[in-house]
Amino acid sequence: MVDGVNSSLLDACWGKPVERVPVWFMRQAGRCLPEYRALRERYGMFEIFRNPELAAEVTMQPVRRLGVDAAILFSDIVVPLAAVGVGVELQPGPVLAEPFRTPADLARLRPLEPEADMPYVLDTVRLLTAQLDVPLIGFAGAPFTLASYLIEGGSSKTLGRTKAAMHAEPAFWSELLDRLADMVIALLRAQVAAGAAAVQVFDSWAGLLSPADYRRSVLPATRKIFAGLEDLGVPRIHFGVGTGELLELLAEAGPDVVGVDWRVPLDRARARLGDHVAVQGNLDPAACLAPFDVVAREATAVLDANAGRPGHVFNLGWGVLPETDPDILRRLVDFVHGAQ
Amino acid sequence: MVDGVNSSLLDACWGKPVERVPVWFMRQAGRCLPEYRALRERYGMFEIFRNPELAAEVTMQPVRRLGVDAAILFSDIVVPLAAVGVGVELQPGPVLAEPFRTPADLARLRPLEPEADMPYVLDTVRLLTAQLDVPLIGFAGAPFTLASYLIEGGSSKTLGRTKAAMHAEPAFWSELLDRLADMVIALLRAQVAAGAAAVQVFDSWAGLLSPADYRRSVLPATRKIFAGLEDLGVPRIHFGVGTGELLELLAEAGPDVVGVDWRVPLDRARARLGDHVAVQGNLDPAACLAPFDVVAREATAVLDANAGRPGHVFNLGWGVLPETDPDILRRLVDFVHGAQ
Repeated sequence: MVDGVNSSLLDACWGKPVERVPVWFMRQAGRCLPEYRALRERYGMFEIFRNPELAAEVTMQPVRRLGVDAAILFSDIVVPLAAVGVGVELQPGPVLAEPFRTPADLARLRPLEPEADMPYVLDTVRLLTAQLDVPLIGFAGAPFTLASYLIEGGSSKTLGRTKAAMHAEPAFWSELLDRLADMVIALLRAQVAAGAAAVQVFDSWAGLLSPADYRRSVLPATRKIFAGLEDLGVPRIHFGVGTGELLELLAEAGPDVVGVDWRVPLDRARARLGDHVAVQGNLDPAACLAPFDVVAREATAVLDANAGRPGHVFNLGWGVLPETDPDILRRLVDFVHGAQ
Repeated sequence: MVDGVNSSLLDACWGKPVERVPVWFMRQAGRCLPEYRALRERYGMFEIFRNPELAAEVTMQPVRRLGVDAAILFSDIVVPLAAVGVGVELQPGPVLAEPFRTPADLARLRPLEPEADMPYVLDTVRLLTAQLDVPLIGFAGAPFTLASYLIEGGSSKTLGRTKAAMHAEPAFWSELLDRLADMVIALLRAQVAAGAAAVQVFDSWAGLLSPADYRRSVLPATRKIFAGLEDLGVPRIHFGVGTGELLELLAEAGPDVVGVDWRVPLDRARARLGDHVAVQGNLDPAACLAPFDVVAREATAVLDANAGRPGHVFNLGWGVLPETDPDILRRLVDFVHGAQ
C-alpha cells in the first residue's frame, strides 16, 4: 500500500477503536457498475481474471466511485480450481465439465502452486497494492462451498449430492475438504505475500448445513485454514450466508472477523459470537434497491444494533445486487462515515 | 374421516401426549413416487389439481406406500391466484404472464369465492375425507410468499423487487398482503368446511427477511390469518424456511404449531418459541439421500433434541427431494414410530 493508507478497516478487524466505521461491499467490484459493464462487453470473466491490468482496473473502480475503505480482489472462488486443471466455466455461475463423482476424482485436485499456476492473480495483487490507498482484501472460497461446486457440477438449491457424499462417504469427504483447505491456504498465503492486507474466506453455502453436520464434517477443514494463516498477521474474515445457527462454529474455526448476513441482528450475532471476534455486516442488499431514506433508516438500524462497539466493519449482508444504483452505495458510504 | 381414524397428528399438534410420534413429510405427495411420475406422464400439474379423482389419488399415494400419519392435499400455493384470474403456469416453479408492477395491479386480485372459484379443490377434500383413516391437512401459501411470486413473476433468489416494493410502497404493500390474507382465510375455511382436519400455512420465503422487516411488513397479515381461523378448532401450522431468527415472530402470529427447518435444532427452537406452541420437523431432506443407517442416526438426533416433549410432529425440515428413494421414507416412518 502507498503511504497515508486508510487503516480503519484493519483497525476495526482487530477490534480497535476507529474514528469512523469502515465500509466496503461484497461484490462492490463488477456487477452494478456501468464502467464494469462496459468492460464486460469486450472481455469474458476469465479474460479479466487472467489479465492483471484489467483485473486491477475492475478492483479499483468501486474504490474510485464509492469511496469505500477497502478494495477486494476481482476474482472468483473457482479460479484456483481452474488453475489446477478442473474444467469450469462461469455462465455466470460455475459450471463444471466433469463433476466429481467418485473418490478417484480426488486425483484431479493436485496441490496448488500459486506462483506457477495463477501468476496473473498475484501480479494483480502487486499492481493493486502499489496504487491503492486502502487495504486490499484477498479472498478464497471455503472448502465446503468449493466441494459443493465440484460435486454438484454447478449451483444447487439443496446440495443433495454434496450432502449425500458427506454422509455416505466420510473418508472421501474429509480427504476432499482437506485438499481444498490446503489449496485455500496456499492461495491466501500467496496473496498476502504479494501484498493483500486482509483475507476473506467465503463459505457461501455453509448455511445449508445443520450445526451438527457443520461441526462433524466441515469445521476441521476451516479450522485448518485459519490456523494455517495465523502467522501472517493479517485479519482473517470468515463469511457465510444463512449462518445464524452456525455463528458460534464459524468463530470456533478461528477467524478474527465473522461476517453476518442481514437476517441476524448484530446484537444477537455478538451474543452468539462472544467477545473475541469482530463482526462484518449486515445491511440487506435488497434494501439498497429502495429510496435513500429507507437505506439510511436500515443502515441506522445496523449501526444501532452494534451500539458503537469496536470491531465493526460495515458491509452488506451478502453481495451487491446487480440492479443496485451505484449512487445509492456512494451515499451509503458517506452516511455510515458521518454516522458516528 | 372414516371411523377409527389415527389421531396422533392432531394430538401432537395440540400438545397432548401421544403413544408414538406422528410423522408426515412435506411434499410426500408427488415428486419422488414412481406411481406419481407415471400419472404425470399423462397429465399436467393443473390438470391434476382440477380433477378431484386424480388429485385425491396423488394425495393418497404416500399414505398407502409410506404409512404416514397424515395426508396433505395435493395442490400448489398458486392455485387460488389462478382461480381469481391471475395467469400463472408451473414450469415447474410458478411463472406469471404479467407480474404485479403497480398499485393498479391490485384490482387483478379480486376476493376468492372458494366454492365458485375452485370447486375442484373442495371436491378433492370431500373425496379424501370420506376415505382417509388419517387426518387431511389443508394448506395455503402465506401472503409474503404469494406476494413474492406476484411481484417477481416467478422464483427469485433475492426477492429484490418484492423487498423494494415492501420498502418503497408501504401502502400498496399492506393492501396487497391484506388482500392475500383474506384469500388465504377464505380458502382454508372452505377446506376445513369440506373436511380438512388441520391446516398449514407455507411462508416458504419469509426466511429471506430480517426480523425487523418481518415484524413491520409481514406479521400483521399472518396474524390476521391465524386469528381468522381460530374459531374453526383445527390445528394451524405455520411453516417457513431459513426462519431461525423469525421463530418468535412466527409463533407471535398465532399458530398452534410452528414448522422448523433442519438448521435449528429443536431444543433451540423450543427455547425461542416458548411453551405455547407445538413444533414440526426437522430432519434435513438431503439426509434422506444417504444410506439408512445415516438416516436413522439423523432422525435420532431430531428426536433427542426434542427430548420426548409432547407437541412434536416429526417431519422433514423442508420438502422431500425428488431423488429420494421412497423406501427410505417408509423405513423412516417405521423408525420414528418405533423410537419411543
